[in-house]
Amino acid sequence: METSPLALPFPALPAIAGVTPRVARARYKNWDRCDLTFVTLEPGTSVAGVLTNSKCPSPEVEWCRKALVLGRARALVVNAGNSNAFTGNRGRAAVEAIAARAAAHLGCEPSDIFVSSTGVIGVPLPIDKAEAGLDAAFTAEPASWEAAAETIMTTDTFAKAAVTSAVVDGRTVNLVGIIKGSGMIAPDMATMLGFIFTDAAVDPVFLQRALADANTRTFSCITVDGDTSTSDTVLAFATGKAGNAPLTSEEDAGADAFRAALADLCHQLALLVVRDGEGATKLIQIDVEGAESDRSAHRIALSIANSPLVKTAIAGEDANWGRVVMAVGKAGEPAERDKLAIRFGTTQVAREGLAVEGYDEAPVAAHLKGKEIEIGVDLGLGEGHAKVWTCDLTHGYISINADYRS
Amino acid sequence: METSPLALPFPALPAIAGVTPRVARARYKNWDRCDLTFVTLEPGTSVAGVLTNSKCPSPEVEWCRKALVLGRARALVVNAGNSNAFTGNRGRAAVEAIAARAAAHLGCEPSDIFVSSTGVIGVPLPIDKAEAGLDAAFTAEPASWEAAAETIMTTDTFAKAAVTSAVVDGRTVNLVGIIKGSGMIAPDMATMLGFIFTDAAVDPVFLQRALADANTRTFSCITVDGDTSTSDTVLAFATGKAGNAPLTSEEDAGADAFRAALADLCHQLALLVVRDGEGATKLIQIDVEGAESDRSAHRIALSIANSPLVKTAIAGEDANWGRVVMAVGKAGEPAERDKLAIRFGTTQVAREGLAVEGYDEAPVAAHLKGKEIEIGVDLGLGEGHAKVWTCDLTHGYISINADYRS
Repeated sequence: METSPLALPFPALPAIAGVTPRVARARYKNWDRCDLTFVTLEPGTSVAGVLTNSKCPSPEVEWCRKALVLGRARALVVNAGNSNAFTGNRGRAAVEAIAARAAAHLGCEPSDIFVSSTGVIGVPLPIDKAEAGLDAAFTAEPASWEAAAETIMTTDTFAKAAVTSAVVDGRTVNLVGIIKGSGMIAPDMATMLGFIFTDAAVDPVFLQRALADANTRTFSCITVDGDTSTSDTVLAFATGKAGNAPLTSEEDAGADAFRAALADLCHQLALLVVRDGEGATKLIQIDVEGAESDRSAHRIALSIANSPLVKTAIAGEDANWGRVVMAVGKAGEPAERDKLAIRFGTTQVAREGLAVEGYDEAPVAAHLKGKEIEIGVDLGLGEGHAKVWTCDLTHGYISINADYRS
Repeated sequence: METSPLALPFPALPAIAGVTPRVARARYKNWDRCDLTFVTLEPGTSVAGVLTNSKCPSPEVEWCRKALVLGRARALVVNAGNSNAFTGNRGRAAVEAIAARAAAHLGCEPSDIFVSSTGVIGVPLPIDKAEAGLDAAFTAEPASWEAAAETIMTTDTFAKAAVTSAVVDGRTVNLVGIIKGSGMIAPDMATMLGFIFTDAAVDPVFLQRALADANTRTFSCITVDGDTSTSDTVLAFATGKAGNAPLTSEEDAGADAFRAALADLCHQLALLVVRDGEGATKLIQIDVEGAESDRSAHRIALSIANSPLVKTAIAGEDANWGRVVMAVGKAGEPAERDKLAIRFGTTQVAREGLAVEGYDEAPVAAHLKGKEIEIGVDLGLGEGHAKVWTCDLTHGYISINADYRS
């Protein structure tokens, strides 16, 4: 698979005190690459998470949902190549076996172990391979962040990570995230596997609120194909090794800085997923304003972002704003045709329900030839606004998905 | 454009007493083909219609919505190559000019003239071309049904029509329909331009109920790309020339036969649109049963039918039932993973939330190599069921839509 033309270079990432990634070959598929990631977290680590809204979630998602209630973590295990979704009791048994083995190794409770898997649906994760992979990981040398980000990949074409920091209680805390995902991406919550690590000391309840809040403005605002995975998971781990007084509420000094840094990290990670959207050649930002509410704006933005006709028009570098009108019209949200305004980049192409007479096509054509496209819609009704991000729909998407073996 | 591999031959259609189609060249685009259809209807013709739910409808749709209230029709004008949607006052003026000119020609009210347009959004329909085209149509020889069906085409690759009949009040009544549509097809109601003509005598209020009822089971159950046009329109005209006692209610003798025939005709027409879905190589029927309600079943069926991952899997002849699970899970409707059963054709591939151990892959592979694919989902929850039809998602869809000029 060729690397996405929208790929970004892998960033320089600091170590996070209390976090040690390792990788190993479980050989879930017939390949010779690392496909099992094992990240140990020192005692005292808080955890928060957001999980898929799918009614058919994987047993890993169900496991994490239960374990999150306790708010503490000692390790993360990520399997690539097999999602273990829709595998009944055998799938549940595989997750339990992994958690038990890692817990025995670390001398902790199985509920301290978080497990995620990604790949084919419907094939039970082979327990023997998982256990052998784990055993290899236990004794492996610590791995780089880049190796960990590569090990969680499936159809991804580049390894994805982001970094930021904040000053909390006079201490600089670091936040690092790795993420994978390029298809089955839709914003009905988390949308992929993403893992965030920070050395900040953060109470798990506060961490959960901060992550959920960041999620609504980042991971829940991206879509590649409108398809929501059975396994979507974002987990955030806070080791507390930075030594700040633990953050427990929005009122604490540094809470705002931490929340902003977490949201920034989530934003970076979410956009990396869109940049690796299957077959993507353009990153598209949809700005909707003037809607009756933020929620309504969000739905209209998604209707545009998920429209195959809009996405193919952008692939063809065609300023086909009529398809944007169509997508606004089908969203089922309040809209008045004769108040609608649409822009591509900074050029207004339609206003008050019709084309802007003689608008300059040159800057629009130039904008559409770029790799980062902006479509703006003003509904002229109220104060509601929203931003979502998607990619174009190209032959590459078809090639990838008509071939990917079930 | 190559003809769809799913195309059907144009059927032999009878004349409908009281209905005379004519075609002409308005040259809405730079082409040398007929693109204006003018169908006269003798006095006494009833009319019913279903129109797009888009919040940004074309002025033609608004015109028809108003005129339908009166229930009578003297002519239908269809323009191909320009949808006249999102064109403000100038678009409205074009529709009014067309209705006025046809009404003057026929000596009737403008509200007796029904107008539909299809094609590019955002360019006002040129009134001078429409008027010259109409004048040419007024004096043209009557055209065949096939010529009329060809004249309303845009990106369609074959002319589409269907025929049926019923016995009402001892008389055989004929029903003929022509239809166009191959992209921007989604079932938020009508989905394309379809026109039905019958010589039956039918009260417009009853005709409206019968058409709306047929619509919910036919046109509203097809999707090509989940995109809903600004111009979707289905109109049914009944001239009364068959001489039956007019149908006015469901209790009348022959009412059931007429309703069944109308529904059959709508079903045939709707499937023709899917057969000409942009880039389609497979016609896919999704049967959902065991849902909590019919409405819930319909939504789940559409979630499957609109999933790009399901549609590309079928294009690749891949029995990737995991993607069906994904689509069920994301529909947001009641579902329990461990009760879910899935079949391809007649072969059960998953049951009680996991793959059927050692199911025979040969008949599944053979089924997927065919042109007509059936996916069955049983939710195991209740009695709700629904059927929808879609097509696969192929490179052809991308080629057509990344090039079609705005």
